[in-house]
This record gives sequence, C-alpha cells and structure tokens, in this order.
Amino acid sequence: MVDHQQLTFGIDLGGTSTRVGLYDASMQLIDCRSMITRVSAGPQSCVEEIAEGIDSMNREYSAGGAPIEVLGIGIGSPGPINLRTGVLGLLPNLPGWNNFPLRDALATVTKMPVLLESDANAAAIAEWKLGAGQSTNLDSMAMITLGTGVGSGLIFGGRVWHGMFGMGGEVGHATVVPEGLLCGCGSRGCLEMYASANGLLRLAAAAADSNDATPELKALVTRSQGFTSLDVAELAWNDPSAQRVFHCLGHFLGIGIANLINILDLPLIVVGGGMACSWNLFAPAMFRAVRDYSLVYRLATPTQVDVREQDRTFICPAVLGPSAGLLGAALLPRLAVLNVQSVNASLIPEII
Amino acid sequence: MVDHQQLTFGIDLGGTSTRVGLYDASMQLIDCRSMITRVSAGPQSCVEEIAEGIDSMNREYSAGGAPIEVLGIGIGSPGPINLRTGVLGLLPNLPGWNNFPLRDALATVTKMPVLLESDANAAAIAEWKLGAGQSTNLDSMAMITLGTGVGSGLIFGGRVWHGMFGMGGEVGHATVVPEGLLCGCGSRGCLEMYASANGLLRLAAAAADSNDATPELKALVTRSQGFTSLDVAELAWNDPSAQRVFHCLGHFLGIGIANLINILDLPLIVVGGGMACSWNLFAPAMFRAVRDYSLVYRLATPTQVDVREQDRTFICPAVLGPSAGLLGAALLPRLAVLNVQSVNASLIPEII
Repeated sequence: MVDHQQLTFGIDLGGTSTRVGLYDASMQLIDCRSMITRVSAGPQSCVEEIAEGIDSMNREYSAGGAPIEVLGIGIGSPGPINLRTGVLGLLPNLPGWNNFPLRDALATVTKMPVLLESDANAAAIAEWKLGAGQSTNLDSMAMITLGTGVGSGLIFGGRVWHGMFGMGGEVGHATVVPEGLLCGCGSRGCLEMYASANGLLRLAAAAADSNDATPELKALVTRSQGFTSLDVAELAWNDPSAQRVFHCLGHFLGIGIANLINILDLPLIVVGGGMACSWNLFAPAMFRAVRDYSLVYRLATPTQVDVREQDRTFICPAVLGPSAGLLGAALLPRLAVLNVQSVNASLIPEII
Repeated sequence: MVDHQQLTFGIDLGGTSTRVGLYDASMQLIDCRSMITRVSAGPQSCVEEIAEGIDSMNREYSAGGAPIEVLGIGIGSPGPINLRTGVLGLLPNLPGWNNFPLRDALATVTKMPVLLESDANAAAIAEWKLGAGQSTNLDSMAMITLGTGVGSGLIFGGRVWHGMFGMGGEVGHATVVPEGLLCGCGSRGCLEMYASANGLLRLAAAAADSNDATPELKALVTRSQGFTSLDVAELAWNDPSAQRVFHCLGHFLGIGIANLINILDLPLIVVGGGMACSWNLFAPAMFRAVRDYSLVYRLATPTQVDVREQDRTFICPAVLGPSAGLLGAALLPRLAVLNVQSVNASLIPEII
C-alpha cells in the first residue's frame, strides 16, 4: 500500500527560463519541467503555461496510483516585488510585467494556495533549512547571491525579513565605495558593481590596464570573442594578475559583509550564486576585509574554552548550487504550514 | 482611596553619572535620583549604591500611603554587553568592569526582576513607544544616536534585535569611507568618525584648513581654549564654512542611513543624541545622500494616490532628548510583561 503523500510544487521564475519542480515530503525532487520564459507573450500567458505544467505533472504522478495531496505552490520571482500584495515591481529582466499580480493570478488559474517570495529569499530559505544552515539549527542568517548582479535574503528570528514594502533589502545596492562606479540603479559604488560576475569583468578589465598585468590577462580581456567570469577563474589558477582580480572582488565583498555584521551581528552568512564556485580564489581577501572592517566580527567573544572560527559569524559558501531557488520555493508551502511566517515591517499607518 | 499602582524603576548607567527613576503606570516620572558613577570603586559597590537609591525611593513613596507594587527594574548600560547572559563586555568608559554580571548582581541585591539592555537599545525603545514612533504604531525601526560616538538600536517586528552575541549591531562602526580615517576600533572610515560630536570637530578642523574657509571658522578651531560641537553649530547660523562642516556630517550620516535602508528596508529611522539638536544644519545634506545612495529609498512604491514623504522610510529627529535612555530602561519591565521579548539570533550550536 502506498502512503498518502503531501507534495509541494516549486517554481523558479527567471528572465530566460522557468523551472517547475514537484517535491515529496522529504523534499526530494519527484519531477521537474523547464520552459522558456516567453517574456514578450506577457505574464498571464506565462502563468497559464506554468499552470499547465503543474496540471500535467500532477496527473502523471497521480496516474501512478499514489493518493496525493498538494499542499501548495511556492514561487520565487526576480525582485523587486511587493511581497505583501504579491504584485511585481519594475523588473529589468521582465519588461512589460510591471504591476502584475503574480501571486493571485497563479492561485486563480491553479486553484491552489500560492506563496510568493523573491528568488533571493527562496534561495536563502533553502540554504537555511536544507543547505549550509541545515546542521546549525540557527534561526537567523543572511544569504548573499553573487550572480550577474548581487541578491540577498535575510532571515531573522526564524522568519524571512520582508521590510517595509516587501523588498526586504538589497544588500547588492549597499554602498562599498562612496565615490565609486556609477551603478545601473543610479547610486555610486554599490556592492553589485564589484562583487557580481559583471563586476568581476570590470575589475579584470581595470587590472589588465595596469602596468604589471600579465600578458595572459591582457590577452584575455582584449580577445575578440569577449570573456566570462569563468575564463578569469580558469586563468587565476596560475596567473597572479587574474588572482589579484579575485582578491579585489573579495576585498569589496568583505566590506559589504563587514557592514552586514556591524549592523546586524548575524551568526551565519552564506555566499551563493555562480561566483561562489570561485570561493577559494576570493575568500582569503574577503575574510581579511571582514576582519579589517568589522568591529563586531573582531569583538565576538568566544563562548567556549576551545576558541573556534565558528564562535564568530560563520561565513561559508552555499552548498545547494543553482537548485536552491527552486527548492526554497517548494519549501514555502511547508514552512507556511509550520507557521514560519515572514516578518513584515508594518507600513506607516495614517499619520494625521 | 488610592489605587493600587504598578511602578517600574529605570536606571541609566553612564561613565560619569548614573540616574535612577521611578515611573508610574502611565510612564510619568514620580521620583529621580542622580549619582556620580564611582567607576574606580568597582561595579559591585556601584550596584549597591543603586540598590540603596531604589530602596529609599521605594520607602519614601510607600510612606505616602499608596499600596504599590514594583513590576521590576530596567537598566540601560553602555555596550558592548552580552545581553543573553547580562554580562558586561570591554567597556572603554568603565575600566575594570569587564565581565561583571550586572543583571544578576542587581537582581540579587534588590531582590527584584532586572531587565538589561544597552543604553542605545533603551533609548530606541523609548522613542519607539513614547517618542518619534509613538503615533505611527510601527513594529520596526532603527535609532541612531549621535553623541560623543555613534550608537544604534534596532527594533524588528516588535522586538529589540540583539544579534548573535547580544551586541545587536554597531551602526556607528559600519564603514562609510573604506579608505577613510582610522577609528579607535581599528577599522577605517567608520560612521562614528564623521557623524559624532568628535567627528564634527575633526570635520571642522579639516574645513578650517581649506583655502576658502572663513576667518571665523579658522579662529574657532585654533583658539587656545579649544572648541565644542555646540560652538560650531552656533557659528553655522551665519557662517558658510561652518555650514559646510554640517553638510559634510550630513553627507556621511546619509551614506550610513542609506545602507541601513538598502539592507533592511525599514519604515522609520530616528536620529537622536546631542548632535540631533543641529538637525536643521545637517538634514538637507543627509536626505540628499540618502536619495543618492539608497536604491530602496528611491524605489519605495507609494501605496496611496496622494504620494507623501511618509510613504518612504520616514527619517526624523528624536523627540525625547537625553531622558530617552532612562525612560526606555523603565519601560523594559512593562514590555516584558506584555511579552515584547527581544530577538536573539541564536548562537551557533555544536557543529560536529
């Protein structure tokens, strides 16, 4: 006899592709579909395509004879989103989708409960419960996602922090160099300008311009077919100039993390996203900058005779890789059942 | 007949003087004692002196015939403190008091429940419940206290944020100028180096060195008896060089506040401490920097047709003045009864 199972669906909505995953109660992936995000067809059309995927996965799995119950759907979307209302903000990678009520639209079509989070928050939830934070039993942490840009998710006291308007915070746009590079957001010197994949390319180009740059780095950044962050990482295994590029990234990331620790005194900071694969290349410079710039990190009082690095804020790479967002989305309905709600800094009410 | 009253004691422990206040249920001050903090006599002796003050105030008030019940004692102490254990850290202004179990020592001598907070958190609680935040009914905010140094208190989801080791965060030591001035804490370019009273003196001395400084500012910073931040504020009412000093302070404070908003998307930030009296002198430059450096502040979506400044993070001066710390301390036992506990980011447990 097959047990009655409570399943959840996770959706990872991206500007290029969208993944839908069906997970069992132990968060094992049962089935997964990937579809191209037809941005120009508009959000309603995309929601219907997702709903069709969910429906067909549901029917296929049910056909196996197992009596199933779908607990709900979790969806991770690029931000900014108003997480209180479930309405999308101005999304640079999803033009024309502004102000679309994603959560309610998906709930209407699927007739299932839908929980919406930013993709960065979804990844943070997955790393917290099933990844880097799993064995720690901590109830607070930050995740910084180093991808094309820099995203962030904050968990305080066992709840996802949503902030005032559900934007929750944009650590990627915290300032690390006040007189620094002009960011696409309009500010100067945002962390994202230095610690993202695009930031690495900029740092590499700048390093190649210096007098002591190796011919290899100069060749890489000037080659006709362009170059990627992976090319710089590959070169860095035995090229000192490329290594310095990662030290530079680590330095700025360290300033950003130091500020997080100074402001919040958090026990765990997880660094994820594509750039996290180069952890060994940037981590030493990152830790140096965290020590140099964070009084709170340096002050942390050892609580045990045997002083360990873990007695301070523990800073480590993510362990779940690119599936964190999908997994975290699928966790949302389960956490909602467990009453792990998000913390909304309440809106300013009527001030007379 | 006199009603049965639930009273609380508040204590504001300072490096120079200590105040003890007795408050009624509507948080009106009934009686207050001020005593010199005899630092060199040691913390136990100071605790006994406080207990004597409490005892005599208690007896005097009871002698009036009112049947009273003391709900508890709240104490605000300079940080860093381990708020989980109630033990003092390395306090620069209270030499020799390191590792003193302040909370338990006071509870033992007074035989009353004692609640301990950092002085900055106590002031934040007072401004939240009875000051700048009173009419807003918000459950999250930050208070930045610009005094000799820069302190901070954070309230998230209706609870004081204590962080990993109870240090809660040191916004004053968040970096605003990575290559900036070396701070006493060992880091470079901390907010405290620019936005405190001492920071203002440094900014004034630097401004007086510039070619276009007015003779009045030059005279002030070079006069034999020295000068204070109040002298600069007084001069600034009609001296452009002194005004620029406050613009400069506002600029750096704005970068610090922008980072708080970028990271946390908070609805309310209250600026207190002695320097807050010069709000009009630094606020325009502060707001300019907040706009320039905070994507989240600029993005804030108006939720009403009638767009108001309040639809963004509301940044305002504190209203309670120097009594905020004492008042907040006296509020602690009352909030504890209401079950408004603090949020501790739990410690890293055993990682095997």
